[in-house]
Amino acid sequence: MEKAKHEYLDLSPAFNPNSVAIIGASEKPGKVGHVIMQNYVDIGFSGKIYPVNINAEGKIMGYQSYKRVSGIKKPIDLAVIAIPADGVPATLEECGKCGVKSAVIVSGGFAEIGRTDLQDKLVKTAQKYKMPVVGPNCLGIMDPLSRTDTLFLPTFKIDKPKIGGVSFVSQSGSVGSSTLDLISGEGFGLARFISYGNAAVVDEVDILHFLAHDERTKVVLFYLEGVKRGKEFIEVAKEISRIKPVVILKGGTTSGGVSAAHSHTASLAGSAAAYEAVFRQTGIVIANELEDLLYYGKIFATQPLVTGNRIAVITNGGGHGVLASDALYQNGLVFPKLSKKSETTLRKTMPALVNIAMPLDIGGEADAQRFGAALQTVTEDSNVDAIMMIALFQTPGADEKLADMVIQYSKNGKKPLVVVSTGGKYTKSHTDIMEESGVPVYESPTQAARALSALINYSKYRNTGV
Amino acid sequence: MEKAKHEYLDLSPAFNPNSVAIIGASEKPGKVGHVIMQNYVDIGFSGKIYPVNINAEGKIMGYQSYKRVSGIKKPIDLAVIAIPADGVPATLEECGKCGVKSAVIVSGGFAEIGRTDLQDKLVKTAQKYKMPVVGPNCLGIMDPLSRTDTLFLPTFKIDKPKIGGVSFVSQSGSVGSSTLDLISGEGFGLARFISYGNAAVVDEVDILHFLAHDERTKVVLFYLEGVKRGKEFIEVAKEISRIKPVVILKGGTTSGGVSAAHSHTASLAGSAAAYEAVFRQTGIVIANELEDLLYYGKIFATQPLVTGNRIAVITNGGGHGVLASDALYQNGLVFPKLSKKSETTLRKTMPALVNIAMPLDIGGEADAQRFGAALQTVTEDSNVDAIMMIALFQTPGADEKLADMVIQYSKNGKKPLVVVSTGGKYTKSHTDIMEESGVPVYESPTQAARALSALINYSKYRNTGV
Repeated sequence: MEKAKHEYLDLSPAFNPNSVAIIGASEKPGKVGHVIMQNYVDIGFSGKIYPVNINAEGKIMGYQSYKRVSGIKKPIDLAVIAIPADGVPATLEECGKCGVKSAVIVSGGFAEIGRTDLQDKLVKTAQKYKMPVVGPNCLGIMDPLSRTDTLFLPTFKIDKPKIGGVSFVSQSGSVGSSTLDLISGEGFGLARFISYGNAAVVDEVDILHFLAHDERTKVVLFYLEGVKRGKEFIEVAKEISRIKPVVILKGGTTSGGVSAAHSHTASLAGSAAAYEAVFRQTGIVIANELEDLLYYGKIFATQPLVTGNRIAVITNGGGHGVLASDALYQNGLVFPKLSKKSETTLRKTMPALVNIAMPLDIGGEADAQRFGAALQTVTEDSNVDAIMMIALFQTPGADEKLADMVIQYSKNGKKPLVVVSTGGKYTKSHTDIMEESGVPVYESPTQAARALSALINYSKYRNTGV
Repeated sequence: MEKAKHEYLDLSPAFNPNSVAIIGASEKPGKVGHVIMQNYVDIGFSGKIYPVNINAEGKIMGYQSYKRVSGIKKPIDLAVIAIPADGVPATLEECGKCGVKSAVIVSGGFAEIGRTDLQDKLVKTAQKYKMPVVGPNCLGIMDPLSRTDTLFLPTFKIDKPKIGGVSFVSQSGSVGSSTLDLISGEGFGLARFISYGNAAVVDEVDILHFLAHDERTKVVLFYLEGVKRGKEFIEVAKEISRIKPVVILKGGTTSGGVSAAHSHTASLAGSAAAYEAVFRQTGIVIANELEDLLYYGKIFATQPLVTGNRIAVITNGGGHGVLASDALYQNGLVFPKLSKKSETTLRKTMPALVNIAMPLDIGGEADAQRFGAALQTVTEDSNVDAIMMIALFQTPGADEKLADMVIQYSKNGKKPLVVVSTGGKYTKSHTDIMEESGVPVYESPTQAARALSALINYSKYRNTGV
């Protein structure tokens, strides 16, 4: 069932629906169809909500309910299907017949347990009606701006992200939900989330194509176990990487992982080396571990691209300066040679005991004013490509004025800036504010250096195509 | 000034003082001598507190104050010296004369700014009186059990750890204070903290020797930039590694880092390869980044040693199972081949859809009971050396009962167990409880696998000496 070149399924109706039919909607708390109904009610979905339940007459959660989709007789952009697997093929067929524009099938019980017969029926129906169908066996989609949310996990167990520019795609539901939960604690927000499960119809190629052309998506984070259409994947990966960064964490890169991935999503995880080669060739940013999705996500979401690798380090702690130096050099980054002008300016603005060299240790008593002076000087130095500022809030001079200075700088910042702050409650109260204001903050020099390295390598790809 | 073999300075009087003289004590908030006085008052130091200030008559913060140490005329276990550098040598000499048993000099202004003349005087005095002197230019020491605390950072800016079995040593004050702040958020507590600054008298060799024989210290975490006495270091490292694990993060392992370390603590950071060779040969656990201190610290603080590398993975999320598999195999660990008996038991206790294989994905709906059954079976299997349990709390079945089951298991656990839980507020509320109860919890399979690998490698060293 190979698709013709450049034929992609359009996910717009699913992500920007004016009307949603929730098939399997229920009054009973705990039921999947109840959680999904509740989501649409709670997030204030502004379109029409049509609960559908073969057993329910009258109303569900205050909304007029229908026994069948065909009974609605209004345009439907998205059908969310949450009924037992056996009933899904006929229901999808009915959706197609009624002109439903897109569907998300959260129900499991298809290819993942050997019921390829049921799944094949879904594929046929989707093809017949050219309907983008997400799933089955997935968490589905979430979009905090258009307010669509098919996640059926208990709502009190998972924090939901604010609106932002980062889209997150996960082949795995568990990686999807736990990472969404983590993303909610980050300063950058979410554009689109999609967990696509068995990928019977909509697959990674369709998703990347949609996100490439989605204006709200500035950065894509992706947990991937395997690719079905290799050629098309390469084509779409090249296309999207020319427009925006895509960070991929590939599951199944070792013998143990490959076998686990196969039994998890029946993915042919394939040779790790082959995937790595494809990713490098297509400009994909490679995440080596789960944490990288967040570390890389936040620098791409907030900082401008930069191709140079000369990083100025400003620190109020000597030991962190040493660790930052190691982290930079381990990641292919170097210190700048500051210009004579910078050296002269710093000599004038810094206390006598400050050694004008990299890393620039401005002293444990440094305050917002001293940090600001150092930051301005290195920013204006054309030998500096990007800046790592280490602000340890345990010190006497580091306070809310320092956080505010960084936020103001960041708003007009012409060079990429990352902040390193390590600590407990007092520190976190300041890093939270900085992150909310778009400053990428890392807990260690290593995290920050790896993120800078990812930014620079991707920027080079964008500039040169390699 | 080489010390004779096996001649170590004894730090006991500094860490278990019955009386402390605070030289430079002050009524003025913000002054270093004020913060230190406040520490001893706030933590309820049970011994005698003698404030000393040349300019103060009468009382300081309610305590009888003295113009000079010689005026006290009582036994003094520890003198904390927080006065301008120029006055320190004479003051230390006076301490020696009065029989003060140990000193911590927090003042800066010595070798680190070129005043080797002043520092040499301290060394001579310390040698004359065989006095263990920590510093100068350091944060000093902290011990939550004996309630000694010379840290002079603003107390509201740094969380202080609870009492525990992990000692933390830092050549750098900034790494010291920020990491202490982080350790306060961890379930394991602190035995002894020491930031030793210029190491004029007490150095890493003395400290490791003291900690080797300190019953309260079960694990040592160490941030080190350079070693002064190579031979003695190797000797003491071998000695302590045979008794308890020492995790060292070495600053200055790259060209950039070496030069930064030199200007920071005048350390001859030396060849990274040479240090690595020494660490491996002496059983030191090598931390590659700041985070490793915490990741390794918590597994060593809570789990038994184990030399085998067969790790059973139990998970309620398929994607995390794949990532765990990759993380294990990347770190030299493998899956066990479960015994026939285990397979039979699991087949009986797990639902039909659960594939009895590694990683054992027990399903997104798994609850405490199912997790418990799986955990018991793999624990009893002699093919299993240690267990990684992935508990994603976004799922319907994972709740406080699951956290409680893990805590109970862990109390009687005969095999090392690490838990992976990734998520936001709901997850954290459960992982905090587990950590407080001695279960090591990690945010990603990679962190957990690296910690297990560190545990196993160290256990092998303990068993075989290599």
